Amino acid sequence: MPVESIPLVGLEAGTERAVVRVGTEIIGGDRLAIIAGPCSVENRDQLLTTAREVRRAGARFLRGGAFKPRTSPYSFQGLREGGLDLLAEARAETGLYVVTEVMDARQIEAVSRVADVLQIGARNMQNFTLLDEIGGLRKPVLLKRGMSATITEFLLAAERIAAGGNDQIVLCERGIRTFDPAMRNTLDLNAVPYLKRESRLPVIVDPSHGTGHWWMVPEMSRAAVAAGCDGLIIEVHDRPGEALSDGFQSLTPSTFLRTMEGVRRIAAAMGREV
Amino acid sequence: MPVESIPLVGLEAGTERAVVRVGTEIIGGDRLAIIAGPCSVENRDQLLTTAREVRRAGARFLRGGAFKPRTSPYSFQGLREGGLDLLAEARAETGLYVVTEVMDARQIEAVSRVADVLQIGARNMQNFTLLDEIGGLRKPVLLKRGMSATITEFLLAAERIAAGGNDQIVLCERGIRTFDPAMRNTLDLNAVPYLKRESRLPVIVDPSHGTGHWWMVPEMSRAAVAAGCDGLIIEVHDRPGEALSDGFQSLTPSTFLRTMEGVRRIAAAMGREV
Amino acid sequence: MPVESIPLVGLEAGTERAVVRVGTEIIGGDRLAIIAGPCSVENRDQLLTTAREVRRAGARFLRGGAFKPRTSPYSFQGLREGGLDLLAEARAETGLYVVTEVMDARQIEAVSRVADVLQIGARNMQNFTLLDEIGGLRKPVLLKRGMSATITEFLLAAERIAAGGNDQIVLCERGIRTFDPAMRNTLDLNAVPYLKRESRLPVIVDPSHGTGHWWMVPEMSRAAVAAGCDGLIIEVHDRPGEALSDGFQSLTPSTFLRTMEGVRRIAAAMGREV
Amino acid sequence: MPVESIPLVGLEAGTERAVVRVGTEIIGGDRLAIIAGPCSVENRDQLLTTAREVRRAGARFLRGGAFKPRTSPYSFQGLREGGLDLLAEARAETGLYVVTEVMDARQIEAVSRVADVLQIGARNMQNFTLLDEIGGLRKPVLLKRGMSATITEFLLAAERIAAGGNDQIVLCERGIRTFDPAMRNTLDLNAVPYLKRESRLPVIVDPSHGTGHWWMVPEMSRAAVAAGCDGLIIEVHDRPGEALSDGFQSLTPSTFLRTMEGVRRIAAAMGREV
Repeated sequence: MPVESIPLVGLEAGTERAVVRVGTEIIGGDRLAIIAGPCSVENRDQLLTTAREVRRAGARFLRGGAFKPRTSPYSFQGLREGGLDLLAEARAETGLYVVTEVMDARQIEAVSRVADVLQIGARNMQNFTLLDEIGGLRKPVLLKRGMSATITEFLLAAERIAAGGNDQIVLCERGIRTFDPAMRNTLDLNAVPYLKRESRLPVIVDPSHGTGHWWMVPEMSRAAVAAGCDGLIIEVHDRPGEALSDGFQSLTPSTFLRTMEGVRRIAAAMGREV
Repeated sequence: MPVESIPLVGLEAGTERAVVRVGTEIIGGDRLAIIAGPCSVENRDQLLTTAREVRRAGARFLRGGAFKPRTSPYSFQGLREGGLDLLAEARAETGLYVVTEVMDARQIEAVSRVADVLQIGARNMQNFTLLDEIGGLRKPVLLKRGMSATITEFLLAAERIAAGGNDQIVLCERGIRTFDPAMRNTLDLNAVPYLKRESRLPVIVDPSHGTGHWWMVPEMSRAAVAAGCDGLIIEVHDRPGEALSDGFQSLTPSTFLRTMEGVRRIAAAMGREV
Repeated sequence: MPVESIPLVGLEAGTERAVVRVGTEIIGGDRLAIIAGPCSVENRDQLLTTAREVRRAGARFLRGGAFKPRTSPYSFQGLREGGLDLLAEARAETGLYVVTEVMDARQIEAVSRVADVLQIGARNMQNFTLLDEIGGLRKPVLLKRGMSATITEFLLAAERIAAGGNDQIVLCERGIRTFDPAMRNTLDLNAVPYLKRESRLPVIVDPSHGTGHWWMVPEMSRAAVAAGCDGLIIEVHDRPGEALSDGFQSLTPSTFLRTMEGVRRIAAAMGREV
Repeated sequence: MPVESIPLVGLEAGTERAVVRVGTEIIGGDRLAIIAGPCSVENRDQLLTTAREVRRAGARFLRGGAFKPRTSPYSFQGLREGGLDLLAEARAETGLYVVTEVMDARQIEAVSRVADVLQIGARNMQNFTLLDEIGGLRKPVLLKRGMSATITEFLLAAERIAAGGNDQIVLCERGIRTFDPAMRNTLDLNAVPYLKRESRLPVIVDPSHGTGHWWMVPEMSRAAVAAGCDGLIIEVHDRPGEALSDGFQSLTPSTFLRTMEGVRRIAAAMGREV
């Protein structure tokens, strides 16, 4: 088979678009999948407060990292198993489905007990042993684009998971690396129509990492929906100024609520709902 | 004055957003500025046919290059003065305002006789002698972002025009250069909210050059409007397959019409009109 | 500790440059470390023939992948354990030290039995669980720069290994991702003086991956040595036209021999030897 | 003719490498062309002192900008005609040939009276009207690579000059724009062997702009020569700390002297001289 072939995740004539089912939710259907929550799970109060707020604003999924990939060894690395327990508690209380990252094959079992959707982070998009392991599961996976991955490389990473037998894959554009220091990353919304043309898979967008500035999230969320994405993953923190990671790109609950209002209007113009 | 200061084009507390007036049109107001037409003026029939079609679909401005900056010396370089004459004829017939590029200070006089808006191309964004000359005019100017210009450099180029006394400046995001060969350029919609926060000037978006694929233009046009831009500049050709330049990124009139329908819906959701 | 601190791998006033000892070889001393061999271990004849040839030309280390990180799931993935056995045989016959990649924490034990130097590939530069595991070993490690890793991120990845207690780290520049499709990667020789100024660690250069063109390897090898690097890692294959991976960037043994002659002259001009 | 063809500057089988003659000097021959001097001509004392020093260290050409392209309109823009007079005086006294930038077609006449080599700056590499004008001269030209120009675009810019009849062209690599903020630009030495393979033209390197750090210039100068370049253009200022532009990347005369010693050793190892 030619090495750039993507027979499983590609959209050829005659194939149908895929949807990913998570409990009662469908990612890739008419309703946008809204995933929100803090960068890192920090403590019980932070997580539960934030979870209640994002649910009230319309989110159906809770994000939050228990195992954190951090550039410096001296940064906060996450609560690990303790964070997973708090995510389970938040799900039990709010009914939100849990999306959380797995960084290594050996964490899969523990993370899978709590996660409804396993997240593969941007730095692990070409961690091939991790992709192979997750390909062997029957569990929804959110695959983030690497920060300098081409569209082709991104699709080949998804193909690898699918080749293992797991076709419950959601693609996530989260910003690429460019020359401009104005933003942490450059959210590449071009990826949305491009991936929708080349691939069967649902595509969501992360405007928080994608820009690195909380004040750009409302506009870029609307733009992502207008470009045709199937959902959004947004960082929200009850007190961003005190966040242990990524506070500068996290929305307060009230800004998230206002962001969702704008998203709702654009979704309606697109014939979709939140 | 610190070298990164933009006192004239910046948006400080208390300053008002600028609008640019072109005849009876206002760029930067509630109505989106829609600029459409061929990459190059090729002949009378092509230009007039395309002009009528884009007007029917809602455009108020006609784009079309008479002087063409081409990477290869062996490519078509434009009809030059003959192209300007055709643009004048198209304006007389359709009432569309003309937006066309000036590549060199010595062309300013000839181009200004026909152009309602002078375009400075991406490759000339830091042609400082051209910026200085245009700063000395009292004529609307459309300044395209250089293909690897930072936001700061883009604003400093506008500041240079304003420092010459000409504050009728429209900024245009048109795609940046990144590592991914999937697209000709990477349309950077992040620039829209960023420029609107930092600058007083209207901001429009070019999804045709910005992606290099005609089939991405409908989605990226909608996304640009949802991100808050003040207008669009789109390549339309009556027969893209026969275009002398950029046919692969030009819309047919009927696709342009459909694109505008989508844009209208998003504009309405944003409280704006076309 | 500030999150960008690199107290262990940084070069502060008063600290000494580190050297990495591998058997009787010293990486970071006056003699350049020359590592050569095929991209992938393919079969016994290919590996042994190539090993003999590179030894004859002056290499002291044999490279060759048993576990291969490949972008497509449909590419050759390496001989795995069988490849390790062949590397052990080549070492026994030639006396060359073995440098080979470990892609996952669970492979460390098997790979360590054969490898004299564990290689962490570019795609795994921020595989933090792998870095942490290798930080717990007392074994030389060759850390390749990620294809879009900043210098700071590269040094923080090394710091993470050192923070685990393993300070036998060699940094390897192997090309970064830029906008120009002319080359597979853009070998960033600027990294050599930059890393030597900021860090205590030895720095080597991979001109094969760094350019993606075998015919650029002689020039870029010389340039790397003139820039002050401590060694080179070069792909050599006895029959590049039949290679299962990376044949286009692999030298034949005779071109490698000629490359080393040029390197020797530059090394002498720098007061170093091969 | 196919639009990417470079029949005039390309190196086909049977064509010979070009050399560019400037007075008694030959660029592209065995002797490296060393061009040195300040970023901007600031005053008589600065220019003459620096000119004497660089001559003493082995330079044969004096660089120095009279017309300066500056990102901000509020930066020092050069002494303009007054700067040209000082360059003429420095040449008369030292015998150094003058290399200075022309930013606009209307400056060509004035600049040509003083310049032995006309420099086209990186921001003007695709200023096609300027290229066309200079193509009509019979005067040596130093064409700097645009900061995000591909190799193909760079060669097509040279081809445009040659198509006008002027084949006295020297190509200059001066750093490209990448994602890493550690350096002002990323000096792309890969361009040296690539351009030498594709083109007949001499290739020189600017390690000062190419890195943006004066302390990297000695290493990168040596590396450039080892990669096979035909010369260097280096910023030297008698008092870098007081420079009106680019002081952070300018060498003192004594560091330049030491840099040239390293360059001489590498040149000798390459069978060339300074």
